[in-house]
Amino acid sequence: MKGKLFGIGVGPGDPELITVKAVNVLKEVAVVCVPQAMPGKPSLALKIAQDYLSEDIEILELVLPMTENQDELERAWQDAGLKILEQLEKGKNVAFLTLGDPSIYSTYSYVSKVIKRMAPYIEIETIPGITSFSLAAARAGVPLVEKDESLIILPVGDRQILLDSLIGESNVVLMKISRDFDFVVDALENSERMDNAFLVSRCGQKEEKILKNIGNLKGQKIDYMSLIISKNQGEEL
Amino acid sequence: MKGKLFGIGVGPGDPELITVKAVNVLKEVAVVCVPQAMPGKPSLALKIAQDYLSEDIEILELVLPMTENQDELERAWQDAGLKILEQLEKGKNVAFLTLGDPSIYSTYSYVSKVIKRMAPYIEIETIPGITSFSLAAARAGVPLVEKDESLIILPVGDRQILLDSLIGESNVVLMKISRDFDFVVDALENSERMDNAFLVSRCGQKEEKILKNIGNLKGQKIDYMSLIISKNQGEEL
Repeated sequence: MKGKLFGIGVGPGDPELITVKAVNVLKEVAVVCVPQAMPGKPSLALKIAQDYLSEDIEILELVLPMTENQDELERAWQDAGLKILEQLEKGKNVAFLTLGDPSIYSTYSYVSKVIKRMAPYIEIETIPGITSFSLAAARAGVPLVEKDESLIILPVGDRQILLDSLIGESNVVLMKISRDFDFVVDALENSERMDNAFLVSRCGQKEEKILKNIGNLKGQKIDYMSLIISKNQGEEL
Repeated sequence: MKGKLFGIGVGPGDPELITVKAVNVLKEVAVVCVPQAMPGKPSLALKIAQDYLSEDIEILELVLPMTENQDELERAWQDAGLKILEQLEKGKNVAFLTLGDPSIYSTYSYVSKVIKRMAPYIEIETIPGITSFSLAAARAGVPLVEKDESLIILPVGDRQILLDSLIGESNVVLMKISRDFDFVVDALENSERMDNAFLVSRCGQKEEKILKNIGNLKGQKIDYMSLIISKNQGEEL
């Protein structure tokens, strides 16, 4: 019998912010896969899950580089998929760890697609996780959305899309802000959203920072694990 | 010493999809508050949390009617806030249960504001939960967002806002779809998003349904705990 693949969201950083279901699955699987930007680099996802793993669990490190090169990425996903499939074919149950939620900007979604394509007979179960933006809102004591408000989750990339998203009435979560931080600051300023915005870095980790005067950070290097929540309404921050 | 208020997300329905942190807090508090649409109505949030509560815990039912009448709502929030504050003033720690995540369309955000205003000295901690849309995506095996894609979370209300949100390149989660379901179906059809959309009802509960041919449901009454995920890209569903 083939093994089953679990995609597991371990949450944003605090080991207590993992679900009971994830803990139960992690105790049962034979292999846990840990995505790594480069070989030997310590994994935050593994650190979060560490206390919930059985002692004899096999750790499978998968190198998934942080690159914009599509060919390189696809090769890495393919390699990772093959390594996981090898374990599944042996009948071992495998958990793939992912920070936050596996449905939101996760490498797991690409790797699981490779496996689905190569081996459609493999059973796959995805276990959702707490997103960084839910925790950021909770830590700041500010709701993300109320009543009939809408929410836009947007990674910073195309500048015009960013500007358009700030014009509307939506609450906005900006991800990957370190890519173009000074432009983001100006955009918040120009759309009169600065007073209702705050920045959260390394949410749920011991280095967590919540900063309300974002304008002062212009010109500084921002930790890549940072996001901005921009409330449209006159919420007291 | 005053008690502390915890806003706790219990997740979308499956009791295993609660966080370890929520479980730990629920075992320690003296009082658990359960929002109810009407007196005596069984509470799904309480059912999810039930197994994690200590035997001698005090249950405080708070009637928070599902109405669009703003005056009635504000009176109910005020009443609920006063009842909770009474417990906190006695030095009891209180947990307020909320389905899904407390930051996303939760009554908790209004009630906690009342308490903050009346008693700013009270310590409040919000514990995030798994959202219904993260679980819906996980159950369907489809990512919500990848790469530089954006995500719009939108409760169905204003028809023009709905139409505008479907024109763009974003992935869209439509909430509260039962309010205007046939219009939603037509809007998905006209924006050529029907093939990449699916509907999830009662996600994580035993009545869970995942339906891919949404057009066939036109004219039917839709369970109010339903949402639609509309993927913009040619994802295989």
